[in-house]
Amino acid sequence: MSVIMQLPEGLEWAAHSCALMASLPGTPLPVRILAEFFDLPEPYLGKQLQKLSAAGIVKTRRGPSGGYMLADTPENISLLQIVEAVDGPTKTFKCTEIRARGPSAVAAGNYLRPCGIARAMWAADAAWRRALAEVSLHELVRRGMAETPPEQVERGAEWIRMKLQKTT
Amino acid sequence: MSVIMQLPEGLEWAAHSCALMASLPGTPLPVRILAEFFDLPEPYLGKQLQKLSAAGIVKTRRGPSGGYMLADTPENISLLQIVEAVDGPTKTFKCTEIRARGPSAVAAGNYLRPCGIARAMWAADAAWRRALAEVSLHELVRRGMAETPPEQVERGAEWIRMKLQKTT
Repeated sequence: MSVIMQLPEGLEWAAHSCALMASLPGTPLPVRILAEFFDLPEPYLGKQLQKLSAAGIVKTRRGPSGGYMLADTPENISLLQIVEAVDGPTKTFKCTEIRARGPSAVAAGNYLRPCGIARAMWAADAAWRRALAEVSLHELVRRGMAETPPEQVERGAEWIRMKLQKTT
Repeated sequence: MSVIMQLPEGLEWAAHSCALMASLPGTPLPVRILAEFFDLPEPYLGKQLQKLSAAGIVKTRRGPSGGYMLADTPENISLLQIVEAVDGPTKTFKCTEIRARGPSAVAAGNYLRPCGIARAMWAADAAWRRALAEVSLHELVRRGMAETPPEQVERGAEWIRMKLQKTT
């Protein structure tokens, strides 16, 4: 068996949901409509939205016309915040201190610095997070709008307007 | 259930095995001795060494005094090569093109560029790999020697000499 390091697919769903919310400011979107819009299973998408909510990225409005909205402006939300909301802040490399095992090990107090292998892995992890922190949700939406066929943007907005009218 | 993106622990084992081989140039190390040196399960460590071998990072010498050796100088082996040998070159973010799903989707041919979210995730993945590519095994060993208690270096070298003498 080979374990491959990959982010959970819920991240893609969470990021697209945030991008849609950013392009419809002030419009609460129910999980049901988001799930239908992206053709995703509602319960699992709901879990991703709860994670975004726990991280303070989205907030909910209750009531018949309630739903999820961004808790801040898209300029103030980074892709890193979305990634860490879904995947957690745990580093991609875990050091189990194998230096301190086996016949050559010395007493634990003698290891004054973290292992060089761990430090190199953590530095790369930090470079990954820095790159994610540099991209705002605003920037993602700007790029997304530029590359999405205009027909889709119109069709999507129209579909959501229609769905929200039926709800209220 | 929460899935957290993390590298397999076999990576730590593979990296430490390579560092040990680098500090004992020209000395083939059997899996059995490596496993005992790091206090690791031999069959699973053996799998990591096979992955390193398949990637051309280590080579084997057969026979009673055989074992694993580096296939190149430590200056020419990067931490990225070791990571990709163990974890594969698969990107940490998989795009399932949810743009092309649901009621707003247009025909697949209309998506001329990869999704902006995927491109941002892949750019961060590339930054991570660049950081790993910049660290050579030589550099890892240099740092490791500087931070390992001298007592451990001597004890480890002595233990391996003794083990190898018993083997031959």
